[in-house]
Amino acid sequence: MNIEILKKNKTFDGNTVIYEHQSEITKTPMRFSAFLPKSEKIDSAIIWLSGLTCTEENFILKSGVQSYLQNTNTMIICPDTSPRGLDLKGEHDSYDFGSGAGFYLNATTEGYKDHYKMYDYISIELVSILKKYFKVDRFSISGHSMGGHGALILGLREKELFKSVSAFSPITNPTKCTWGKKALEGYLGELGEAANKYDATEILKNGSVRSDLILIDQGLDDEFYPEQLLTKNLESVAKEVGQDLKLNYREGYDHSFFFILTFIEDHIKFHLKHLQN
Amino acid sequence: MNIEILKKNKTFDGNTVIYEHQSEITKTPMRFSAFLPKSEKIDSAIIWLSGLTCTEENFILKSGVQSYLQNTNTMIICPDTSPRGLDLKGEHDSYDFGSGAGFYLNATTEGYKDHYKMYDYISIELVSILKKYFKVDRFSISGHSMGGHGALILGLREKELFKSVSAFSPITNPTKCTWGKKALEGYLGELGEAANKYDATEILKNGSVRSDLILIDQGLDDEFYPEQLLTKNLESVAKEVGQDLKLNYREGYDHSFFFILTFIEDHIKFHLKHLQN
Repeated sequence: MNIEILKKNKTFDGNTVIYEHQSEITKTPMRFSAFLPKSEKIDSAIIWLSGLTCTEENFILKSGVQSYLQNTNTMIICPDTSPRGLDLKGEHDSYDFGSGAGFYLNATTEGYKDHYKMYDYISIELVSILKKYFKVDRFSISGHSMGGHGALILGLREKELFKSVSAFSPITNPTKCTWGKKALEGYLGELGEAANKYDATEILKNGSVRSDLILIDQGLDDEFYPEQLLTKNLESVAKEVGQDLKLNYREGYDHSFFFILTFIEDHIKFHLKHLQN
Repeated sequence: MNIEILKKNKTFDGNTVIYEHQSEITKTPMRFSAFLPKSEKIDSAIIWLSGLTCTEENFILKSGVQSYLQNTNTMIICPDTSPRGLDLKGEHDSYDFGSGAGFYLNATTEGYKDHYKMYDYISIELVSILKKYFKVDRFSISGHSMGGHGALILGLREKELFKSVSAFSPITNPTKCTWGKKALEGYLGELGEAANKYDATEILKNGSVRSDLILIDQGLDDEFYPEQLLTKNLESVAKEVGQDLKLNYREGYDHSFFFILTFIEDHIKFHLKHLQN
């Protein structure tokens, strides 16, 4: 397991680090950032999945998350949002498909199927790196927007793997919104059964319910809330199938990092409660 | 006073805002960011001066400062680091002179003398905006690197105006380092008496001492510490002239925003103590 450190900056007695490794799953170099608190016995990790156009750096630079983890045994790890360094057909043409927009699924369409396997990258390879390289064995997952979608689908499908799941402003029903349809059709060829496995609302509808509470924060002035995030769809299906869900609608907040900055402490505390038990 | 709001994002019950106005002093549009806590009676402001290559956005996006001001009556305001929209000779040729590198002085060289008047922009125009537009009447000043230099020279020269002064990794003796010499010669034509008025160590040497303590944090793994920041020069002159100085040398920390993130709470508390008295 050859993992290279690209940057390391001391932060709150711990370190903020950018890593790169050759991924066996995406067959490309992949980067991730992490904050490692000072503790000698780091035993757990929160995986943070970022949104469209982000890299491994945005969250670790802007969220202020380090201050809430500095005195814990929990690290945070933030993978890039897609494979890089390729030149597939249509890969770099738009902000919501291809590079920077992996949607945390395993693609099956020509070209993409060989590299765009972010679902397996997170749930298999990144988890394996956390176990072997960082020696941690308990995991929670969270994310923002496209990354909130990623956290929800991974958390709902890999129920044993993740101790807790939360999301900021997630795309909750991608088979029904423009962003999601474009991505799912582009990566899977069509909507339908395969696409439904990457749709949190559809996964819940099919009865895959977590026994623990899922935490979601959603700003009511979020410009993407009415048309892309479709939060109410998830909320009503969760009620139907009995998924415990704390959905905080926050008046006046938008889709930006300032919303994350405001409520990230709540999410970190939520995950720490699960990880430290 | 025509000040336009370009962006406004709710943050911790307050607002992070980007403003633009036509400056009478620089004769260009100027931008600044601010965080306004929820309080109905904001009465004081910390002016934050950023470093080389920064705009009005870097600090407000990356420092997490909002969390430490959210329950206070103190705002923070972060001006851009130079005039913009010009095309002076040599203005855009290097990262350490011209755009993004105003050095918080009043230029006297051809072309620059008509616009690069950041010292007056901060101490006269920005202060006037704070009084008239934001209705605050007590000010403190801080900054990082080139902005730490700005905070020190403004704080040492405008002793009545600023209640307290602090800096992260400041350029403390610009007439003696490469960055400073290039800037001072470029903006003022030569080193000498005029340049010394923009050099914190020289200002102190000339006896302009504050009666309150100045707070400085400096990382010992800062790549610019030995050659550009010359912190020891300031320290030894401060001792000679009796300037009260708390200079924290921090082992393992570098010049990055992660250093600021780690210690910004200390600096905010320091200024609040002065502003709330």
